[in-house]
Amino acid sequence: MIGGGEGSLIGPVHRMAARLDGLCELVSGAFSSNPEISRSTGSKEGLPASRVYDSWQEMITAESALSEEFRPHFITVVTPNHLHYGPVKMALEAGFHVICDKPLCLSLSEALELRDIVERSGKLFCLTHNYTGYPMVKAARDMVLSGEIGTLRKVVVEYLQGWLASPLERTGNRQAAWRSDPARAGIAGAMADIGTHAFNLAEYITGEEVVSLSAKLHSTVPGRILDDDGTVSLTFRNGMSGALLASQVATGEENNLSIRIYGEKGGLIWRQMEPNTLTLLRHDAPTQIIRTGASFAGMGLTASMHSRLPAGHPEGFIEAFANLYRNFAMHIIAIIEGHKPELAADYPGIHEGVRGMKFLEAAVSSSRNGSVTIRI
Amino acid sequence: MIGGGEGSLIGPVHRMAARLDGLCELVSGAFSSNPEISRSTGSKEGLPASRVYDSWQEMITAESALSEEFRPHFITVVTPNHLHYGPVKMALEAGFHVICDKPLCLSLSEALELRDIVERSGKLFCLTHNYTGYPMVKAARDMVLSGEIGTLRKVVVEYLQGWLASPLERTGNRQAAWRSDPARAGIAGAMADIGTHAFNLAEYITGEEVVSLSAKLHSTVPGRILDDDGTVSLTFRNGMSGALLASQVATGEENNLSIRIYGEKGGLIWRQMEPNTLTLLRHDAPTQIIRTGASFAGMGLTASMHSRLPAGHPEGFIEAFANLYRNFAMHIIAIIEGHKPELAADYPGIHEGVRGMKFLEAAVSSSRNGSVTIRI
Amino acid sequence: MIGGGEGSLIGPVHRMAARLDGLCELVSGAFSSNPEISRSTGSKEGLPASRVYDSWQEMITAESALSEEFRPHFITVVTPNHLHYGPVKMALEAGFHVICDKPLCLSLSEALELRDIVERSGKLFCLTHNYTGYPMVKAARDMVLSGEIGTLRKVVVEYLQGWLASPLERTGNRQAAWRSDPARAGIAGAMADIGTHAFNLAEYITGEEVVSLSAKLHSTVPGRILDDDGTVSLTFRNGMSGALLASQVATGEENNLSIRIYGEKGGLIWRQMEPNTLTLLRHDAPTQIIRTGASFAGMGLTASMHSRLPAGHPEGFIEAFANLYRNFAMHIIAIIEGHKPELAADYPGIHEGVRGMKFLEAAVSSSRNGSVTIRI
Amino acid sequence: MIGGGEGSLIGPVHRMAARLDGLCELVSGAFSSNPEISRSTGSKEGLPASRVYDSWQEMITAESALSEEFRPHFITVVTPNHLHYGPVKMALEAGFHVICDKPLCLSLSEALELRDIVERSGKLFCLTHNYTGYPMVKAARDMVLSGEIGTLRKVVVEYLQGWLASPLERTGNRQAAWRSDPARAGIAGAMADIGTHAFNLAEYITGEEVVSLSAKLHSTVPGRILDDDGTVSLTFRNGMSGALLASQVATGEENNLSIRIYGEKGGLIWRQMEPNTLTLLRHDAPTQIIRTGASFAGMGLTASMHSRLPAGHPEGFIEAFANLYRNFAMHIIAIIEGHKPELAADYPGIHEGVRGMKFLEAAVSSSRNGSVTIRI
Repeated sequence: MIGGGEGSLIGPVHRMAARLDGLCELVSGAFSSNPEISRSTGSKEGLPASRVYDSWQEMITAESALSEEFRPHFITVVTPNHLHYGPVKMALEAGFHVICDKPLCLSLSEALELRDIVERSGKLFCLTHNYTGYPMVKAARDMVLSGEIGTLRKVVVEYLQGWLASPLERTGNRQAAWRSDPARAGIAGAMADIGTHAFNLAEYITGEEVVSLSAKLHSTVPGRILDDDGTVSLTFRNGMSGALLASQVATGEENNLSIRIYGEKGGLIWRQMEPNTLTLLRHDAPTQIIRTGASFAGMGLTASMHSRLPAGHPEGFIEAFANLYRNFAMHIIAIIEGHKPELAADYPGIHEGVRGMKFLEAAVSSSRNGSVTIRI
Repeated sequence: MIGGGEGSLIGPVHRMAARLDGLCELVSGAFSSNPEISRSTGSKEGLPASRVYDSWQEMITAESALSEEFRPHFITVVTPNHLHYGPVKMALEAGFHVICDKPLCLSLSEALELRDIVERSGKLFCLTHNYTGYPMVKAARDMVLSGEIGTLRKVVVEYLQGWLASPLERTGNRQAAWRSDPARAGIAGAMADIGTHAFNLAEYITGEEVVSLSAKLHSTVPGRILDDDGTVSLTFRNGMSGALLASQVATGEENNLSIRIYGEKGGLIWRQMEPNTLTLLRHDAPTQIIRTGASFAGMGLTASMHSRLPAGHPEGFIEAFANLYRNFAMHIIAIIEGHKPELAADYPGIHEGVRGMKFLEAAVSSSRNGSVTIRI
Repeated sequence: MIGGGEGSLIGPVHRMAARLDGLCELVSGAFSSNPEISRSTGSKEGLPASRVYDSWQEMITAESALSEEFRPHFITVVTPNHLHYGPVKMALEAGFHVICDKPLCLSLSEALELRDIVERSGKLFCLTHNYTGYPMVKAARDMVLSGEIGTLRKVVVEYLQGWLASPLERTGNRQAAWRSDPARAGIAGAMADIGTHAFNLAEYITGEEVVSLSAKLHSTVPGRILDDDGTVSLTFRNGMSGALLASQVATGEENNLSIRIYGEKGGLIWRQMEPNTLTLLRHDAPTQIIRTGASFAGMGLTASMHSRLPAGHPEGFIEAFANLYRNFAMHIIAIIEGHKPELAADYPGIHEGVRGMKFLEAAVSSSRNGSVTIRI
Repeated sequence: MIGGGEGSLIGPVHRMAARLDGLCELVSGAFSSNPEISRSTGSKEGLPASRVYDSWQEMITAESALSEEFRPHFITVVTPNHLHYGPVKMALEAGFHVICDKPLCLSLSEALELRDIVERSGKLFCLTHNYTGYPMVKAARDMVLSGEIGTLRKVVVEYLQGWLASPLERTGNRQAAWRSDPARAGIAGAMADIGTHAFNLAEYITGEEVVSLSAKLHSTVPGRILDDDGTVSLTFRNGMSGALLASQVATGEENNLSIRIYGEKGGLIWRQMEPNTLTLLRHDAPTQIIRTGASFAGMGLTASMHSRLPAGHPEGFIEAFANLYRNFAMHIIAIIEGHKPELAADYPGIHEGVRGMKFLEAAVSSSRNGSVTIRI
């Protein structure tokens, strides 16, 4: 693991997600650009000192030199955005499969370059758009693709948080600090941090690509350089319209990601904060509440293979995140064992990373130019 | 009452709302442009034949000639949009107070003319933006104006319905027919029918005026001329940003009007379909569920005077609508009895009608011109 | 109207409910045992002084002597419990149809006597177990009776309020005072005031009669004589088991009446505080959310005729209460016009009143005798 | 691990819970009474064949003979109820700490014997009443004990499932088979399987002990010997009354455990299926929605140390279960390292096991004797 030292929010999540199904084991790490933090994190995680490194360069070099018995199969990159490109590139080129946190990198050109590297390397790459790991997101995608709600017409995707409603980045909060800093976060703030999740979710569930957008981004908190709020109007290839709302200054909102998709025959609603419920709307007919576990009888493998418990035993964020690790591991195992991976065991990859960077550059550009419509 | 004959949706609502508190009595009507329907409706309502008219012109003429004992104090206009201007004008000029359904009329110029007539006549005018009649909407407005959630930053107002997801106007449905017909509905479809409610609600609760907008309207159902779906980005005078979503093709949505308002110190959420609940969000503190009745202890008169029952006894659409009639009647009584009306007994008037037409013309114009930002 | 003067909770509700559909008109009243209150209420309601009486005896005598043109068709009794028997008896015997608030009277023997009087008089009698007036309660009953959830197995009915969590009856609160006073309320407190509603709802929806019960009643607030909380275990004729919970000391609960019914094939849940939603549970299949209006397509007349508005326009307590008045009026009109009343236009009557008194006497007796099982 | 082989429901849950925080490692197992299943499970879990055993006796004997470096610190027992007593006894006496699934054993006398053994052994013992591991259950307990809702008056605890609404035990379902078999499940069915959870939750959150009860148990499905449904009326030492409902034939209910606690000053509601929300009711004041993470600012360590993620990132069943393992491991580590364990890191133990068996014997006895009240 590269990054994820003490004080990291997402590092421990990756570790829990990786451990949950017993398929992955943490064997080495360069957990921080601060060697002391790296070492103390490694020690807390029970790693031998020899497998804890002061830098990611050192780690990739050393680990790739290990014999096959000890060499890890993949490397996870959970650093701030500006430190994705380098480690991902080096790890791929050193022959590791790679899991990387989102967004992919700082620019579309970096993203395209990484895409080439992934393709050249023949290695697996997973970008942790973790919300696609929820069983009810899988169920929604299946239902949309099977025509359950008819021709798609409209999608509304929202990702509202309130934790940056105050200038937290000036209080010593590390999470807020790098996310508000163009040098480390890139060209966008909220739109990069959470807007890309919303964008990915809309494209994933609908199976349709956005072809143009018009955006209005705001830097609401005085003194903040990057956007902390924005509204984006989307047009998809199939003519479907969309609205994407992302905010980190919606005071009191926790982690309110939701998506509503309307088709000619019905609507689907999913809300991340009650993730085991998927609502199917019909005109002049009862709404159906589809639930993790309970409603799988009439479904295929896709949703059920992403759930671990019987109905009514809530599965949450870590379980969904773990589904990405589990699926990624299943693909690696399939390679090792020489068989086909289970098709339903999908995970977001380099394509989704490139899409996210295209979205970000278009949104920023549109907003800077009077919300003019931009093709992506 | 002008309009509201058999087959009308909103006519019976107006009659129930008027009756509920025992302050208003239906005494005469021209219920339809079809004299037979007018007479049969009058008969069903128990009116003497002499007070049922074949046309609104006839009715206003005849009723204004009655002695004070029999002459109604006000006239209600519940016709399709294109038949608002004429009756409202004639009734005001004949000396009646007037209640009119929304939107006010077909164009901003008509609206401004009506505003002049109202002002000249000295008569009371109520436009039934009925959603402002809910006690929790009053409570929300009070809380926002008293600074409970701090400086306003963002408002998201949505009005989603699904009943026009199919080409209902071509199946003989009268409600759908006139709403889809530019000659009777005006320049906009969904945006006029429900978008103006959403717009009014946002301005009412926040106490702020929209100064510019950018809109994208859609005619989703093939063959439909007017819009049935749209997204509008709003900027308010105080800098607050807003998003307004209105759709009548969101399949499976019933009458889903909701508003979320975020300020520096908190957020407020109100949903029309569970109207007795108002949610107050705070950062890192428990959310508060403010309820009609139960939470009035710490509130002023405004919310409590618009509720009729103890907590937990649901009040709904008719009760909220009746609050407009009750407040309007209180103002008429205040005039008759020569005292000041209760300030909290407010109702939407000609100003709100003009605002709605400004909004509509701007939204349509923006959408026709590539979503360009337009001042209103 | 007998009772319902200023300060009454339920009097104004009856008046709004009666007015809503334009079928009933208030023409006279003895609104209070205090003649001054009676007169001032009559005046506020716009009644001529000649039709406002100082006592109910006086009123029934005078009104029954009126010519048919002025004579009311029915009399409503909304007094405290101890003043039901007398006015109901006299009104029936004077030839009026009668609407009476619940519970029917003070004892089973009074109830049986009233039943005889109703039967002898040939007059219509309605007991306002108003919760049966909700459209979704009608829908639930229809679904149960049509076998939608299979053989019934278990019913859980709860009625929780918190308003008597403090000794409100010793603070001058009139509503609390008479409800806590055995002389005016009868042998039971909460069980009479709200427990009988819960009991009635369970028997109404399931169509099954309770044959035995075991009860434990509590007087939680120190100094209170009558029960303010209780749990009753029920056995129905068909073998179905039941649990009935009633409390007026469940602090913070508003008017939380709910019922859950489980059969071999499914379950039904209805909650009074969100009355337009009925939930249908299935094993290993999506839950269905049946909604007033929206889900009527597949239903018969029963539910739809008790709703006045399209889906998503919330109907509440007053509307449900008005359904009893409307149905009662429809039956009177049917008598007057000499036709059969609409079967679906049902309302609770003297049978339900007798059942309630049997339930109360059995529950009090069981609780006094160590929760011993008692047949009813 | 003893038990938990393929086909087991709870075995994988224990393994995921144990792994989540990286404090526990599975090193050996006797996963089934069928040696083949035991070996194949061990192989799937990646254990060396030498550490997978054909019987629990063999396993305890062999593992206790290992050197300290390889010897496990604790043994987990996840067998059906009749196979708790033996392994727990032997493991404790062999010097292992023990985690055991609930209910503790088959009878109160076994339970008391195990209590003696635990006390004599000086070893740690955890009974997985896992629902106490939820952060909001901890918060509820803290709030009750700190007097937040005043003197306790009433508790309603329910545990409703529907999965045994059909005679599943006669279809080859292993979970249903042993739970319905007195020889393996003990004297009670639903009341043992889920009723003991509800009982434990009520005593845990309120901090009060039940002193007497009256129960009515039902065997609803024809042919079923043990109870599948029951209602229990509880009296607590402090005078508080309670109602406990448990059912496995509530068709369509998933895993609906909920508790409502009313005190003089307020009420608390927690529902397992939305576990990150705790509702605080007040009379005539807004209800407060206390949320995992978001509302911890004003709370002590207890709730927050049982949550792993920021607000709005749902934590579920596995996380709560893992809290028991984590706390248990912290206590073992404290012993090893010779320091005091964190007090807030509690877990249910042998006392709770004895309480559960007392409850079960009393409930069964009461029900068999006409619901007579029985002291426990």
